[in-house]
Amino acid sequence: MSIKSALVTGGAGFIGSNLVDLLLSNGISVRVIDNLSTGRVEFLTNAQKNPNFQILEADLVADSIPDSLFAGVDVVFHLAANADVRFGPLNTSRDLEQNTIATQRVLELARRNQVKKFVFSSTGSVYGESEVVPTPEYAPFPVQTSLYGASKLAGEGLVSAYAEAFDMQTWIFRFVSILGPRYTHGHVFDFISQLRIDPNTLRVLGNGQQKKSYLHVKDCLSAIMLGLSAGNSKVNIYNLGIDGTCEVKDSIYWITTQLGLQPTINFGTESRGWIGDNPLIHLDVKKISNLGWKPSHTIEESVKDTVRFLQDNTYLFEKAPND
Amino acid sequence: MSIKSALVTGGAGFIGSNLVDLLLSNGISVRVIDNLSTGRVEFLTNAQKNPNFQILEADLVADSIPDSLFAGVDVVFHLAANADVRFGPLNTSRDLEQNTIATQRVLELARRNQVKKFVFSSTGSVYGESEVVPTPEYAPFPVQTSLYGASKLAGEGLVSAYAEAFDMQTWIFRFVSILGPRYTHGHVFDFISQLRIDPNTLRVLGNGQQKKSYLHVKDCLSAIMLGLSAGNSKVNIYNLGIDGTCEVKDSIYWITTQLGLQPTINFGTESRGWIGDNPLIHLDVKKISNLGWKPSHTIEESVKDTVRFLQDNTYLFEKAPND
Repeated sequence: MSIKSALVTGGAGFIGSNLVDLLLSNGISVRVIDNLSTGRVEFLTNAQKNPNFQILEADLVADSIPDSLFAGVDVVFHLAANADVRFGPLNTSRDLEQNTIATQRVLELARRNQVKKFVFSSTGSVYGESEVVPTPEYAPFPVQTSLYGASKLAGEGLVSAYAEAFDMQTWIFRFVSILGPRYTHGHVFDFISQLRIDPNTLRVLGNGQQKKSYLHVKDCLSAIMLGLSAGNSKVNIYNLGIDGTCEVKDSIYWITTQLGLQPTINFGTESRGWIGDNPLIHLDVKKISNLGWKPSHTIEESVKDTVRFLQDNTYLFEKAPND
Repeated sequence: MSIKSALVTGGAGFIGSNLVDLLLSNGISVRVIDNLSTGRVEFLTNAQKNPNFQILEADLVADSIPDSLFAGVDVVFHLAANADVRFGPLNTSRDLEQNTIATQRVLELARRNQVKKFVFSSTGSVYGESEVVPTPEYAPFPVQTSLYGASKLAGEGLVSAYAEAFDMQTWIFRFVSILGPRYTHGHVFDFISQLRIDPNTLRVLGNGQQKKSYLHVKDCLSAIMLGLSAGNSKVNIYNLGIDGTCEVKDSIYWITTQLGLQPTINFGTESRGWIGDNPLIHLDVKKISNLGWKPSHTIEESVKDTVRFLQDNTYLFEKAPND
């Protein structure tokens, strides 16, 4: 790999901090921008010991970012985002600001400072409720069903247009939900939060039959690094997921088993857990698999690994510093 | 039609002012918001005489828009936009601001004031360089090739997500280039501008073989009104174009013939006229045609009608008031 210097936005977050550690372990120097709204400095404890690491605490939309931070960078990994799909209708401008406008700011900083490679973390939510399942990258033109998906689709459009207009090669990775160490939000977190308060009752949004695909963060990162080394188009788009799904109720079983609990489970009646929830997410991952990538964790292993991490790091259930 | 009151953003513009006249002639009261950046008060001379008409000169991004303007409105036609695809790389935030952020502002005003129908003017540019031509609404997931297309795709995503999250029915019309009375920008305007300075020479961006589809504004509006009355989904998406294309050099022949000129024509060598130019735009219009819509102007008639309008309104070649 010819990359010597990388910049990671959202580098104190779940996926970001795992990426930072991976890059540093490969001898790549890493600069991080993070506003620490959901990121945790604790995740960068090891990185902070490395002389090739530096972090700027700043907000991509509200703050002015110095050009010098982007100078000499070979690749930008733009992972900073509002990653919670559920609350769009309660705050209708947050996804636009944090996912779309922030992406344009980072693209502009990259362009102005001659960064030639740009990696964007997108989401399977951009497919809306596709009629084609598993859903491939070239699925029919989707209709958006959430402000989160819409804001990420907008980010994808910006990334692609920059690649076309300027001398910049780009990667768009459409993730399913990611699990594993440093996971701090999503259904596993929410269920354990509930069970810490009342170990005997679990309330579930939706009827528990939503089918979801979950990928382990280590498998996600190995796919990103492979896609980055293999992609030779202006715009390289890859689905990242696992070839299979589980139902929410399967996941609940694995979580409670790992915790040693047998709570009463109160399911909702809706097929969707919330407005914009997709009752079936299953991405076609042939494109990345054809490069030789294979995930090393099943969904069950990913769920259980996440539970173990949260059991070992209960401080994450305290109120986040900037909340 | 059960619509009694409409709000038209960009109502002083080319398509907007034609729509305003059509709505008023159908007894619908009309409110317009326009920042007059490219819109012209001259286009609303007739509308201004109608007691059912009112206009607010305001910018959708920079100015605060009073909620009262949206109260009691049955349908919002959101036509305000930066409509020029060419200058994206020179001003990388304009499309984002005027097409994406402005759309979210208008959606939010509509939602907050219980407007139940929302019409969005999108563009065939959202298909990028589709491999499927003529391009249908359900073409494969496109890759954006211009900041303009990306910004309109982002607007579409917002419109769809609002329809899903809130009690709002939406229409997305993807236009080819529109021609006809009150046309003020685009290749016909640019060519006549050049020929007014030097009637003997015409410089053309690109090799003149770009294939484009042009629709007359009257046909565009009849399609919008038909789509609006027929669409019964949360999100109704229609291509609006003509079943055929011309080459840029055909259009030049019609323009110069109508002007009675025989200039020397200097073509470029590129298949694209500018970065993000699509050398082949041809939308599949079966979906709107199946509702019984038929355009009443050929491309040649649309071009010539536009030239006649510009010959009769040479004041449009003077510097625009807010330029």
